[in-house]
Amino acid sequence: MPCAVFGASGYSGVELVWLLHNHPQFSLEYAFSSGAREDAEPIASLYPQLAGQLDVILQPWHSNLLSQLSQQVRVVFLALPHEASAEIAPVLVNAGLLVFDLSGAFRLRDPLVHQQAYGFERSANVPETIPYGLAEWTTLSGTEQLIAVPGCYPTVASLALKPVLSLIDSVPMINAVSGVSGAGRKAAIQTSFCEVSLAAYGVATHRHQPEIAQTIGHDVIFVPHLGNFKRGILATIYARLKSDVSQATIDAAYQQAYATAPLIRLRQQPPAIGDVVGTAFCDIHPVVHQGHLVICAAIDNLLKGAAAQAVQLANQYFAFDSALGLQQRGGVV
Amino acid sequence: MPCAVFGASGYSGVELVWLLHNHPQFSLEYAFSSGAREDAEPIASLYPQLAGQLDVILQPWHSNLLSQLSQQVRVVFLALPHEASAEIAPVLVNAGLLVFDLSGAFRLRDPLVHQQAYGFERSANVPETIPYGLAEWTTLSGTEQLIAVPGCYPTVASLALKPVLSLIDSVPMINAVSGVSGAGRKAAIQTSFCEVSLAAYGVATHRHQPEIAQTIGHDVIFVPHLGNFKRGILATIYARLKSDVSQATIDAAYQQAYATAPLIRLRQQPPAIGDVVGTAFCDIHPVVHQGHLVICAAIDNLLKGAAAQAVQLANQYFAFDSALGLQQRGGVV
Amino acid sequence: MPCAVFGASGYSGVELVWLLHNHPQFSLEYAFSSGAREDAEPIASLYPQLAGQLDVILQPWHSNLLSQLSQQVRVVFLALPHEASAEIAPVLVNAGLLVFDLSGAFRLRDPLVHQQAYGFERSANVPETIPYGLAEWTTLSGTEQLIAVPGCYPTVASLALKPVLSLIDSVPMINAVSGVSGAGRKAAIQTSFCEVSLAAYGVATHRHQPEIAQTIGHDVIFVPHLGNFKRGILATIYARLKSDVSQATIDAAYQQAYATAPLIRLRQQPPAIGDVVGTAFCDIHPVVHQGHLVICAAIDNLLKGAAAQAVQLANQYFAFDSALGLQQRGGVV
Amino acid sequence: MPCAVFGASGYSGVELVWLLHNHPQFSLEYAFSSGAREDAEPIASLYPQLAGQLDVILQPWHSNLLSQLSQQVRVVFLALPHEASAEIAPVLVNAGLLVFDLSGAFRLRDPLVHQQAYGFERSANVPETIPYGLAEWTTLSGTEQLIAVPGCYPTVASLALKPVLSLIDSVPMINAVSGVSGAGRKAAIQTSFCEVSLAAYGVATHRHQPEIAQTIGHDVIFVPHLGNFKRGILATIYARLKSDVSQATIDAAYQQAYATAPLIRLRQQPPAIGDVVGTAFCDIHPVVHQGHLVICAAIDNLLKGAAAQAVQLANQYFAFDSALGLQQRGGVV
Repeated sequence: MPCAVFGASGYSGVELVWLLHNHPQFSLEYAFSSGAREDAEPIASLYPQLAGQLDVILQPWHSNLLSQLSQQVRVVFLALPHEASAEIAPVLVNAGLLVFDLSGAFRLRDPLVHQQAYGFERSANVPETIPYGLAEWTTLSGTEQLIAVPGCYPTVASLALKPVLSLIDSVPMINAVSGVSGAGRKAAIQTSFCEVSLAAYGVATHRHQPEIAQTIGHDVIFVPHLGNFKRGILATIYARLKSDVSQATIDAAYQQAYATAPLIRLRQQPPAIGDVVGTAFCDIHPVVHQGHLVICAAIDNLLKGAAAQAVQLANQYFAFDSALGLQQRGGVV
Repeated sequence: MPCAVFGASGYSGVELVWLLHNHPQFSLEYAFSSGAREDAEPIASLYPQLAGQLDVILQPWHSNLLSQLSQQVRVVFLALPHEASAEIAPVLVNAGLLVFDLSGAFRLRDPLVHQQAYGFERSANVPETIPYGLAEWTTLSGTEQLIAVPGCYPTVASLALKPVLSLIDSVPMINAVSGVSGAGRKAAIQTSFCEVSLAAYGVATHRHQPEIAQTIGHDVIFVPHLGNFKRGILATIYARLKSDVSQATIDAAYQQAYATAPLIRLRQQPPAIGDVVGTAFCDIHPVVHQGHLVICAAIDNLLKGAAAQAVQLANQYFAFDSALGLQQRGGVV
Repeated sequence: MPCAVFGASGYSGVELVWLLHNHPQFSLEYAFSSGAREDAEPIASLYPQLAGQLDVILQPWHSNLLSQLSQQVRVVFLALPHEASAEIAPVLVNAGLLVFDLSGAFRLRDPLVHQQAYGFERSANVPETIPYGLAEWTTLSGTEQLIAVPGCYPTVASLALKPVLSLIDSVPMINAVSGVSGAGRKAAIQTSFCEVSLAAYGVATHRHQPEIAQTIGHDVIFVPHLGNFKRGILATIYARLKSDVSQATIDAAYQQAYATAPLIRLRQQPPAIGDVVGTAFCDIHPVVHQGHLVICAAIDNLLKGAAAQAVQLANQYFAFDSALGLQQRGGVV
Repeated sequence: MPCAVFGASGYSGVELVWLLHNHPQFSLEYAFSSGAREDAEPIASLYPQLAGQLDVILQPWHSNLLSQLSQQVRVVFLALPHEASAEIAPVLVNAGLLVFDLSGAFRLRDPLVHQQAYGFERSANVPETIPYGLAEWTTLSGTEQLIAVPGCYPTVASLALKPVLSLIDSVPMINAVSGVSGAGRKAAIQTSFCEVSLAAYGVATHRHQPEIAQTIGHDVIFVPHLGNFKRGILATIYARLKSDVSQATIDAAYQQAYATAPLIRLRQQPPAIGDVVGTAFCDIHPVVHQGHLVICAAIDNLLKGAAAQAVQLANQYFAFDSALGLQQRGGVV
């Protein structure tokens, strides 16, 4: 299944490139990067760790490549800035391509909420039905043209909360700590080595808060933190339980939801960030205490929170095994 | 004011030694360490970073030193294992010494709760009134004989919660991430370099949970985490507010509680761990959102959460300035 | 090709298990661990990150398993303490098994040098010819019974030095920094999280110094350092060049040695630790300056410096492609 | 002694501010920062960790402040970019101020070497005699007007090498690893959190190489590395010894050079970065092996390698105790 990646030089993009390059069913035909030299540039010039392993050529995208692209490729993965995705995704869809968009451009249903969160209006020529692809909770018919891949925080928070939503009785309070790669590959004083130190940011104002709320159908309090590590998100989620909900009931709810999900691991101990880094897993460990629920959940933000979930959705679209090509233990960054 | 430290070679102990050595009013006369060589051992043999700065001699404690100690010293700081503190504190008090105990031996009022948390019975010869020394909330008369210095997590959680207790309407949910030094100076596989990775532990079962509950007079849900850094605790605390409590009301409550507290910093932004490491400050930043309160608070676990708070209490006991000798920007470990 | 791993629960052992489990030509039949429970223990109980990925069972070794082992298995990898390897390797060889030993038991030719380095005498029943398996410099005939896999530091140092030995004119001075995993999976105060800080150790007395000297046939000055990271070794090697040796001559020597070596990458820039971590590559970058040579070289100590080199040697033994099964981008630890 | 700091918001600048603020003999009157708001800006708005500890106001420099400055202040410390220092230092000297310049503008004697290293010509109006202030090797008469404070790498390398120069018989080879703060406080992809990974850079081409060569009077091979930590430099230096130089001779040479130097610690073990971070010490540990010398030496790059050495020189200029105000155990960054 020939495919292309836009935004291939970013952290999520390069993980996509690696996953697709090694996937038994997809073949990577194009890797576009806005920063690439006109005469094409090996990906190892940006990521020297890939030398001798991944001979992919980055090239800049030009709109006159569209017809060639639409003839040679079936699937496109967009790892672009939000507004760039909003612009190009409809163009690609119109050219008959299947698009998995990793940006936030098409995640929020409500256009006002979207505009408030992302600061730009979504264009009108967006198809009406774009699935929000939380992989374990999404069934694709194989007729979709554009799928919105969830954000990193919403992925872990929603996977953790959805099985037990009917059992809780308060606003969920989501404490999440992300590695620095979540901020993308760019120079910024906040993510420079000497400045990174565990702290909350965007307390209850982060654009992923409405995304989580939309996904679980309930307001949430969401407090993201930046942690002093490269990859991974650890979410610790707090909620009051309805009366008489036991640990056994909670455990059963997770079993029912995920017993056959190959990329969810229901854990007997709180997961560590290191348990999931480099993998496509989401680890979940729920604890009931004094009428409250604490859920510890972890993902790799660049994999299950971005590139691997996109590939998982593509697997599901084409009726491949959901975890096909996702059994790795490392990443590029 | 001549003083002594027991447990001087542990992480909290060595911070105490450093603080007292540089304090304008206290003079360190003895530094006891159970692991010290009989013939006395310079502290720099364990902490080479102190060579040329701190020529303190570690020596083992023997009970036959008691009368000498009680004649030469007025104040004793105990940075010992809980059970060792429980045994020796009454002996030192009986010898007329003023004791600041950094262990958990005398913190929990209820003997059953204590035994459940610490696994041993507290002896009967404990004086009845032992203040729990949360420094900003404790007034010492100068007649106390034994003061229980709060634990690290309870210090930051209680300082953050006490000003607003009357304004919240749910069980507080306390998410806290501690540096590895909180586990003390010892070899253990869990704290070995390659094994440390951000994760929750002791979810809702940590012995600091009843201590926080006792201090704020209310049940709490407390989830400690181990983080991949040496020092510091970041607590992010969640609670539902009573109706119509505004940000202004919350801010006023903190102002009223701490406007003149020299070691509390009310911050306009979420504090980072790095802002408090090496200092005696507790930084607090409250945010009101959709009827809920999120409090971000941070301390250095070895300083405000242990050694510096003990010295602060001693300052208060002797009516020195509360922050005397605590304006440093670094520590030993 | 059925195989077994001894010492499967250590850091090198578990990497071996992962590599063999995913190898297209080897199948892992047994994973022995001295610490495993008698009733067999899933490897994920020690390494929870492997849950759902690697369903290998650890079991303790008993000598009465020998005949069963020798019938079911062709190759054994030993990731054991040096003395344990020295004892069991001959037993396994006598039972007809092919043994790749990752310890230092059989690396040093000179028994006196060996005893001085390792503190024990090697038993007499060791076969006389045991290849020292620096993979790029070793040709295996397929008749060997026991192969000594080089140490981590000697691997990177020797790979860097061997192509240019005839061009240098001084004792090579090898500065190497290793991640903490090089010390193995055990609790020790020196490798506890709060104590690790970049420093030299064993200056010119490390047991890998005679191993490097033996391999390159020349005395060396070797200074290992412990760095504050988990995996990887960066070696920076200094030597004076014979007169008139140019950068071009040096580059040609490396080209000649390694142009077709799939796991050596001759780099145009100094390699970073992060470029090789999780891979089986050795990256090399030589610089000529003022009559001197500086070689920057890097490996992952647990892969090219241990498990991956062992598998590479096994590949070579059985005439598989040298890099078969070694194109990963991550590890377990 | 009233003083001012230029470049007060950079990493070295803020350390200077902290040191001078706490110094018993200097008083900080002005802290200039090119990025400061016109209406003056508290330093804690850039460094929130200083809130409540250091109420210094940053202000932009304007040349019309010169006469006011020269009336109110005796000493100026420049923590500016090289070219900015080259421009302003002569102006300040002409106004009668004593200038300690932490940049590279006045370190290299040879104007051609300077231009090659720094890319700009030094102006002609530089006074002819500007001491290069390697503090332990410099005697100030109290009549100097401008003192060049050495670079961070040259400080540690020169302090380590100077006592033994007459005993070595080869080009010294200097392997040095620096924390990321050495690159200054700025956003750059190379120093962003996810990109930092131990690696050499500027192999034998770094501008500190000619500075070291000038200071020790001998060519050197110098290979700097970037390490994954914030502060500190560890240098491991290699040289061949003249025949029959023993460990005792080497030790005696260091004793003779530094027995009374309060900020040099001759160590019995290799120093760790963590031993010196936050201090003004230079730790040195020499080892003789097989006719070669290995010197392990460490400093805090922002203190002994910048701000603290500048203050030490100022102490010496005014005949204060050399280490006055430098007995701290922490820094700002």
